[in-house]
Amino acid sequence: MKNYILRDENAVFFECGYSCDNEILLVLGDNKFFITDARYGIEASELVKPNVNVVVADKSLIAHTRMLLRKFSPKSIVYDPNDFSVAAFSEISKNLRINFIKKAYFSKQKRVIKSKDELEILRAAARFGAECFDEFAQFVRKNGEGMSEKELHYNATLIFKRKNTLGLSFDPIVAINENAAKAHALPSEKKLKFGDLLLLDAGVKYQRYCSDRTRTTCFDENFNFSKKQNFKTAKQNEIYAIVLKAQELAIDAIKIGASAKDVDLAARDYIASCGYAKEFFHSTGHGVGVDIHELPNINARSNVVLEKGMVFSVEPGIYIANEFGVRIEDVVVVGENGAEIL
Amino acid sequence: MKNYILRDENAVFFECGYSCDNEILLVLGDNKFFITDARYGIEASELVKPNVNVVVADKSLIAHTRMLLRKFSPKSIVYDPNDFSVAAFSEISKNLRINFIKKAYFSKQKRVIKSKDELEILRAAARFGAECFDEFAQFVRKNGEGMSEKELHYNATLIFKRKNTLGLSFDPIVAINENAAKAHALPSEKKLKFGDLLLLDAGVKYQRYCSDRTRTTCFDENFNFSKKQNFKTAKQNEIYAIVLKAQELAIDAIKIGASAKDVDLAARDYIASCGYAKEFFHSTGHGVGVDIHELPNINARSNVVLEKGMVFSVEPGIYIANEFGVRIEDVVVVGENGAEIL
Repeated sequence: MKNYILRDENAVFFECGYSCDNEILLVLGDNKFFITDARYGIEASELVKPNVNVVVADKSLIAHTRMLLRKFSPKSIVYDPNDFSVAAFSEISKNLRINFIKKAYFSKQKRVIKSKDELEILRAAARFGAECFDEFAQFVRKNGEGMSEKELHYNATLIFKRKNTLGLSFDPIVAINENAAKAHALPSEKKLKFGDLLLLDAGVKYQRYCSDRTRTTCFDENFNFSKKQNFKTAKQNEIYAIVLKAQELAIDAIKIGASAKDVDLAARDYIASCGYAKEFFHSTGHGVGVDIHELPNINARSNVVLEKGMVFSVEPGIYIANEFGVRIEDVVVVGENGAEIL
Repeated sequence: MKNYILRDENAVFFECGYSCDNEILLVLGDNKFFITDARYGIEASELVKPNVNVVVADKSLIAHTRMLLRKFSPKSIVYDPNDFSVAAFSEISKNLRINFIKKAYFSKQKRVIKSKDELEILRAAARFGAECFDEFAQFVRKNGEGMSEKELHYNATLIFKRKNTLGLSFDPIVAINENAAKAHALPSEKKLKFGDLLLLDAGVKYQRYCSDRTRTTCFDENFNFSKKQNFKTAKQNEIYAIVLKAQELAIDAIKIGASAKDVDLAARDYIASCGYAKEFFHSTGHGVGVDIHELPNINARSNVVLEKGMVFSVEPGIYIANEFGVRIEDVVVVGENGAEIL
């Protein structure tokens, strides 16, 4: 692809090694322009890759982009219709004799196979994330009883950020019992009691790359985030065993050349066969990289063929409204011998 | 406006009293539909205003929105071209006999005059924000010497979040000397020394409403965030006096019926008359509410006529590249007697 335009912060970071919250990346053949405003000019010049020209727009970023488009007058340019608002796109493209070619997710597509360097960073992110799970387990063992979800959530953010040496991939989910049945629960005033089910979904950002992991656990004297759990009710133990088995089946289905759909269905069909089809209402996984959600999609409609170096989550769940929910999630990379858990 | 569609999280919160990160609000006359996915269904039903129907989409939010549009078949519907990506809008509107009317920022426009209740929350947010400035000043007095911008930034986020009882309006800016010349600096390893200039731009979110404030100060035995500062160099003192005077002039220009442009120019012309026109390269202010940037815009091109109950920042600055920067910011509300600083 010779000419393209990008605005998404993570996509631009991937291309330039730097991004801020107001920029347009315009690539016209060998010319790469990082167009930003005066607030970010100095920083951008210090931090972009050497082959990128930083341009501080006098007026608006879009006006400057149009000026460059007029100057270079390419015949065509690729853009992602998800990356530009209706307003921004109409302003950029108005009255220019350029063919704007829609290509959804072309930048995510570029990033779908991770390089050796990226895998190293993703492995480190996963390792730090796992360490934070263990640190949070220690914290909960010592201080958790009687703490509200809000307090647990606050302390999880502190632990996962490690004094800001790490970022958060997303706002962690800390949910007790029936709140865990909300797949994306907000932390409430609900307090943790001995014997409760506790779900933690959290990840860190390390050098801009994300980790992502979920564990569902029983808060008792053996509290920990391992996958071996012993809950207080037979129903919880039954559901947990189903989700764990579903995750194993999905992970076992991962190999070079397999279809993403088959990975999803490995988990989904098993859960359905146990009678919980409707209680597993999201996809089995999503790609993970600089975005917490990228390609490939691992769902029942995804015909993507798995390739070496793809990185995604495997996270089946069963949610029993008003009772509890269970989700188990790891991030894997596709390798010669199938899935490797990061 | 009878029929409209919204997707922006804060705009939807304003309408419904609840929002999450995946929703479409569809208003068709008296019917308000909050369309979301199964992850948020329970929470949304508990928290939306009573006149809003929560709809959990079976497939995609957009597919469900189209289903409702077909069922009610309105003649026309208003949307904000900034609120929908090219991809989302084309998917929503495809093959429907409905006139989609572009109306940029119609939701921000609705929110431009703050109600008495909103002002009360904004006042509380400003008060909490100011208290956090004082707490951070205490912290810096005691521990600041030798701390890096990163460490200062981390501790600022802890203090401003008050154990998550408050949110952050935005990632705080903590910048020393030449880094303060980058209007939106990222925190670096640069360490705070006695006599340094320190800029802090930070705000809290309280009940979803934002505070916003900037102070530039000298780190010495009298360290504090008041506007009375005594810097170590004549140039810093000169620039600081100009910015402070520019802010006073802008605030004095605020009254019901005045033009936003004239408020901007009150600051800008004074800074220009002192020879620093090019070093003040952003607008004088922006509206503040559930978004940290909303209407009215206070810039040299804004013909908005100020009305009672408008709330915005007044934040002139002068940035001397490679040396230092000064910005002073408060949020004001327009009242019968001119501006009141929140």
